[in-house]
Amino acid sequence: MTKTNSKLRVIPLGGLNEIGKNMTLIEYKNEMVVIDCGLSFPEDEMLGIDIVIPDITYLLKNKDKIKGIFITHGHEDHIGALPYVLKKLNVPVYGTRLSLGLIEVKLKEHKLNNTKLITVNAGDKFKLDNMEVEFIRTNHSIPDACSIAIHTDIGTIFHTGDFKIDYTPIDEDIMDFHRIAEIGKKGVLLMLADSTNVERSGSTMSERTVGDTLDDIFMNADGRIIVATFASNIHRVQQIINSADKYNRKVAVSGRSMVNVVNVATELGYLNMPEGMLIELNEIKDYKPEEIVIITTGSQGEPMSALSRMAASEHKKMEIIPGDLVVISAHPIPGNEKTVSRVINQLFEKGADVIYDDLAEVHVSGHACKEELKLMHRLVRPKYFIPVHGEFRHLKQHAELAVSLGMPEENVFTISSGTVVEFDKNSAKIAGTVPSGRILVDGLGVGDVGNIVLRDRKHLSEDGLMVVVVTISKEDGKVLAGPDIISRGFVYVRESEDLIEKARIVVKEALIECENRQIREWAYLKNTIKDELKNYLYEKTKRNPMILPIIMEV
Amino acid sequence: MTKTNSKLRVIPLGGLNEIGKNMTLIEYKNEMVVIDCGLSFPEDEMLGIDIVIPDITYLLKNKDKIKGIFITHGHEDHIGALPYVLKKLNVPVYGTRLSLGLIEVKLKEHKLNNTKLITVNAGDKFKLDNMEVEFIRTNHSIPDACSIAIHTDIGTIFHTGDFKIDYTPIDEDIMDFHRIAEIGKKGVLLMLADSTNVERSGSTMSERTVGDTLDDIFMNADGRIIVATFASNIHRVQQIINSADKYNRKVAVSGRSMVNVVNVATELGYLNMPEGMLIELNEIKDYKPEEIVIITTGSQGEPMSALSRMAASEHKKMEIIPGDLVVISAHPIPGNEKTVSRVINQLFEKGADVIYDDLAEVHVSGHACKEELKLMHRLVRPKYFIPVHGEFRHLKQHAELAVSLGMPEENVFTISSGTVVEFDKNSAKIAGTVPSGRILVDGLGVGDVGNIVLRDRKHLSEDGLMVVVVTISKEDGKVLAGPDIISRGFVYVRESEDLIEKARIVVKEALIECENRQIREWAYLKNTIKDELKNYLYEKTKRNPMILPIIMEV
Repeated sequence: MTKTNSKLRVIPLGGLNEIGKNMTLIEYKNEMVVIDCGLSFPEDEMLGIDIVIPDITYLLKNKDKIKGIFITHGHEDHIGALPYVLKKLNVPVYGTRLSLGLIEVKLKEHKLNNTKLITVNAGDKFKLDNMEVEFIRTNHSIPDACSIAIHTDIGTIFHTGDFKIDYTPIDEDIMDFHRIAEIGKKGVLLMLADSTNVERSGSTMSERTVGDTLDDIFMNADGRIIVATFASNIHRVQQIINSADKYNRKVAVSGRSMVNVVNVATELGYLNMPEGMLIELNEIKDYKPEEIVIITTGSQGEPMSALSRMAASEHKKMEIIPGDLVVISAHPIPGNEKTVSRVINQLFEKGADVIYDDLAEVHVSGHACKEELKLMHRLVRPKYFIPVHGEFRHLKQHAELAVSLGMPEENVFTISSGTVVEFDKNSAKIAGTVPSGRILVDGLGVGDVGNIVLRDRKHLSEDGLMVVVVTISKEDGKVLAGPDIISRGFVYVRESEDLIEKARIVVKEALIECENRQIREWAYLKNTIKDELKNYLYEKTKRNPMILPIIMEV
Repeated sequence: MTKTNSKLRVIPLGGLNEIGKNMTLIEYKNEMVVIDCGLSFPEDEMLGIDIVIPDITYLLKNKDKIKGIFITHGHEDHIGALPYVLKKLNVPVYGTRLSLGLIEVKLKEHKLNNTKLITVNAGDKFKLDNMEVEFIRTNHSIPDACSIAIHTDIGTIFHTGDFKIDYTPIDEDIMDFHRIAEIGKKGVLLMLADSTNVERSGSTMSERTVGDTLDDIFMNADGRIIVATFASNIHRVQQIINSADKYNRKVAVSGRSMVNVVNVATELGYLNMPEGMLIELNEIKDYKPEEIVIITTGSQGEPMSALSRMAASEHKKMEIIPGDLVVISAHPIPGNEKTVSRVINQLFEKGADVIYDDLAEVHVSGHACKEELKLMHRLVRPKYFIPVHGEFRHLKQHAELAVSLGMPEENVFTISSGTVVEFDKNSAKIAGTVPSGRILVDGLGVGDVGNIVLRDRKHLSEDGLMVVVVTISKEDGKVLAGPDIISRGFVYVRESEDLIEKARIVVKEALIECENRQIREWAYLKNTIKDELKNYLYEKTKRNPMILPIIMEV
């Protein structure tokens, strides 16, 4: 046994100083346990990128030690990177039934069928050689969410996962306060806890409060009701169904992920749809407006989502009509405010009425606010603490919250992804870093788009490009054809013929100058063309298109 | 006199169904009056665009009738298009002293020096042949703001401008309730009113409340204080200066627009800076941290602003040090949440403490909430109403507010920019449209970037491009050089040599095929190359780079 093996190492591989891409590695002796495997959505400057996944270099190096990936819940930022990671790392995946149901859909889409999926019930414990992994019921904005405790002979690590405290959850699966208290009583070495809502004082309201608002809305509506929400928020969907049932409306479902989730959740028994209530979207015409509810995706104004397509009259199966009531049962995620607002405007313009977060209590968060976090800290009362799941502002404020509850500052590790924290029974310290970062997925390419490609995309997006082609004689360096100029995304060519023609002359003069000076070095020639053209265009337009000079030798 | 001339026509040229670009035209008999001339900032999909200005085709057609542009206040969304409009339309500009002071800076930058600027005091009236234009004191987040009333023999039009009701404004220039009431008593034909905050219930707090928060913050701070706010919010700047004075701190100013505005406002007497308080930014090292306040731009996280540069360690004259207290005295404008959040994270990471909107009352809005709007409607009690300054959701809700106060629905015109509303003494109706829209400014180009260029920029930004060049013999159609392939923003070439090489082969095969079939039509050849390459690349990468085939004939 090597020296490091006697220490317990905790390494967040994602989710710290960023939103999403949650993944944490626990390493002890000859074993590794991975908690969650999430994706994040691209930042604005990651042009053309589809999704972002964690760097798993360190996991690949330690393939044989990994005992499994343990999933706290079925949100994209906790399971979304699985298909990419499992292609390189075939290890078992542990999760509750709903999490695995959603993961299976994903793996099927990626044609992955040799993953060992192990179904977990909250309360289950999995014994490894030197660790025991325990799942503990918690509440979140998706059913069947768990915290995870890892017991070792050095001490217990408690990872809250994403959570809120809901004293009246829809499925009556109440957070296992007693088990958490028991673990806390025995003593916890380290807690890692969700920091998303640490800036909010008080407590997040129960999901049940949204049901009351929905009931009010349904009671007063006399046209069709269209409710947009997160597909994975099955409790929200259940409450919409409950209100529909109460007010005798049929339910149709729109949007690929909503259809997927409703199917999986109904099949697995997480969603209780009364017999005969569900109809197809193209059957809605057979009913009166006041007999219809449509549950749809698009609560974030995502341009391709069902609600956005309805709002823009681009939905194939239905259109918004005056008298429709649209409820956006969600809060815009930072960065989505403008797309959501655009959809609201379009819906209003079509004569629909729209109810959203600013106007009524149609959404509650899935994350714990300050007072809930304090309860978790008090129950678990860990010796050490690592705030996770948040930007630096959140982690820092969560650290301050822990200190305000009496934890010594030196016991809080406000670290970033990739940092290794090493524990023994009596001490903890930062012990270096492992590779971590953002792997960009663009189409089929995983990691083939890096900073250079993104820098070029940004340049192209701002000022377009100008291609200059010239064919030159191998023998005497004379210009045989061109210079031809093609531009895209720079100016509207038909109205700028003069500018383009003058640009051609600038290039021509540069070529003649080089010819006269008998310069045959193409690199030099290209740079001369580039510089002259760049200066000319900037002077005339104050823009800097990308210039691509191409020399063909014949 | 033609027939239309006897009617009063009101035409909003911008600011309806959009944020910014505010401009309204009042046309009566042989005269036209323009209220405001603002810019808006580009939407996310307007890649590379600097600013957006209104379409003034209709004004240019009626040049001779225009009596002047009357400015309600000095914000960019009300004065920002002036330099562009005045280049084509040299008419007098009327505004209060501060508005003109800010306009002069702008005109100087654009080397415009033949504009007639006419200084207005609130209360002034300007008599034209058939209209009288009156400026009425109001309150907003910039000093010296006015509403504008236009009196005609048909009736009075009352344009609120942007406003809030502040019973205790910093400059003690209280809204002229009495004159507004007097005008309302005499009878108002039409009101146009600010809709920005119509979704917010209650009232906007007085600017003075921010001063109390700042005082508290200053009292408890023992390091440097850096306050970021809008440069034009001179009352906010004054309150920062007041707190600095109270707690014996010197003030330095950072950021071009902050320096500009502080200079203009001090010169014109809108800002009262105690003798010896203002120091240069490079003098701050001569003082203790607790003796310093820095007032800076960047409250919206704008990437090139002073605060962003400080946060990213790119500011030439100062750097953030542990112990600094940064106050972001603003609320993120929708769309800026992520950039603001990034700056907050960076500041925290540098060891500064950061106070922002979510954590303390360091900002109040400049716009009227529901209860203030109701007061305005009650005081002015117009016969007709056009909600202005807002997206459709705001205009619609403002219309509903008017109706809830008793206005008949048919007297409310929820219209979009470019719509003409025609009035006589007893009736009003929509009477067609005039050209209106978004003119995009990119560098020196005004209006030369349109949909095609933007579509190309979007395409390039998402998947980059691939240029294919081939030189072909004029005589026999044989390939003399190439195909050469250059790609940018598509894949990282060094790691995708294989893909690029195979793409070359695909093109080669297409060329051979065409040569064999004796096809010499270059358009056909280009399309073949494009299609083959497109299919190949999509199959291999699920990406669609822009493909530019270029054929050189020798």
